[in-house]
Amino acid sequence: MVDSLGRVGTERTRIRRLPDKAVTDRAALDAVLDEGLVAHVGLIDDDSPFVLPVGYARHGNEVVIHGSSGSRLFRAIAEGAQVCLSVTLLDGIVYARSLFESSMNYRSAMIFGQATRLHGEDEIDALRALSDRLLPGRWDDARQPSKKELAATITAALPIEEWSLKVGAGDPEDDPSDLETEPWRSLWAGYLPMRYRFDTPVTDPLVPPGTEVPAYVSGRS
Amino acid sequence: MVDSLGRVGTERTRIRRLPDKAVTDRAALDAVLDEGLVAHVGLIDDDSPFVLPVGYARHGNEVVIHGSSGSRLFRAIAEGAQVCLSVTLLDGIVYARSLFESSMNYRSAMIFGQATRLHGEDEIDALRALSDRLLPGRWDDARQPSKKELAATITAALPIEEWSLKVGAGDPEDDPSDLETEPWRSLWAGYLPMRYRFDTPVTDPLVPPGTEVPAYVSGRS
Repeated sequence: MVDSLGRVGTERTRIRRLPDKAVTDRAALDAVLDEGLVAHVGLIDDDSPFVLPVGYARHGNEVVIHGSSGSRLFRAIAEGAQVCLSVTLLDGIVYARSLFESSMNYRSAMIFGQATRLHGEDEIDALRALSDRLLPGRWDDARQPSKKELAATITAALPIEEWSLKVGAGDPEDDPSDLETEPWRSLWAGYLPMRYRFDTPVTDPLVPPGTEVPAYVSGRS
Repeated sequence: MVDSLGRVGTERTRIRRLPDKAVTDRAALDAVLDEGLVAHVGLIDDDSPFVLPVGYARHGNEVVIHGSSGSRLFRAIAEGAQVCLSVTLLDGIVYARSLFESSMNYRSAMIFGQATRLHGEDEIDALRALSDRLLPGRWDDARQPSKKELAATITAALPIEEWSLKVGAGDPEDDPSDLETEPWRSLWAGYLPMRYRFDTPVTDPLVPPGTEVPAYVSGRS
């Protein structure tokens, strides 16, 4: 489980359960990170575990996130607390012959490490990456962050060094005896794919009448 | 922030950032828990934070989860490690006039506490609740868990006592000056709703030809 990145496959990223679902291909990790919009960041604060949902973007070899400088937890993240960042894409529901083998199809990425706070041009680059991911097409149209707004923002980067990826896909993996025994043999089994979809955009009532919805919103898929 | 449940609104569940987004209505919490399918469970193991994505169900006043008895982290959860369970529903992308106010619409529930392992009838009840939530309609059709399968399963319940709920919904909350100044005043703004949707079911090739897809799969919404 150790690849060219060296740190992949440390003791804490080794996938013990269902190791056949472990994927060690960095391109596969990037594909998952580039599809998700929300990450769950785990950290320890005052001896308690906390999980913070955040919008994120992969920016090269880092995952960038941003939050408020007024958030104690976010400050802790940017100051280098140990974190576990988890991105989970739910791809479907798996209907096996047995309840035991019934499950979900998913892609689950996990990155361990310490983030660093970004400043100056690095921060703007990261904010642009976040905008391009979360609101593609919007950066050039919207008002750029002011100095005051930047001061109220913490932007942090977590290196993609120590990570794991677990993928469950496709048909159920039933107990072989269930495939030979009625009524289970004849029971419908398979999976029900699912994914996030965008609906019709909703225009803010304060927008002047007749203003067109930009294509980067109406055509987003 | 303390309601009739007593423990709501402890120091660690107090929402410091954007407190106007905090919701203290237990029915609103239940609605979020009953809509999600995946929770992210944060815990501390060997001084490191871990985040575990799991299928879950609300079962009355508890959240129930299950995992493999071979999973070290899951054993720690069932043995009463402090956990933070997070359920995040992503409802849309918010396009504000400024990048700073652009954000996401979401409902984010967080439950703190310690889970207990369930046995006997309590375990079966919880597994049924999980099945009814994750695979509604399937319990009566599929093969029930064997003794061996139950021995390989850890089922745990986390009481819904210490929790918080944060909701961001609707239109952007722009800086008032952006609503009066061109070009921002005339820029399209609003939100793009999003949600999980099911696609067409995929039948396992081992299912005998002509077997119908059950309505609880094909009609799931």
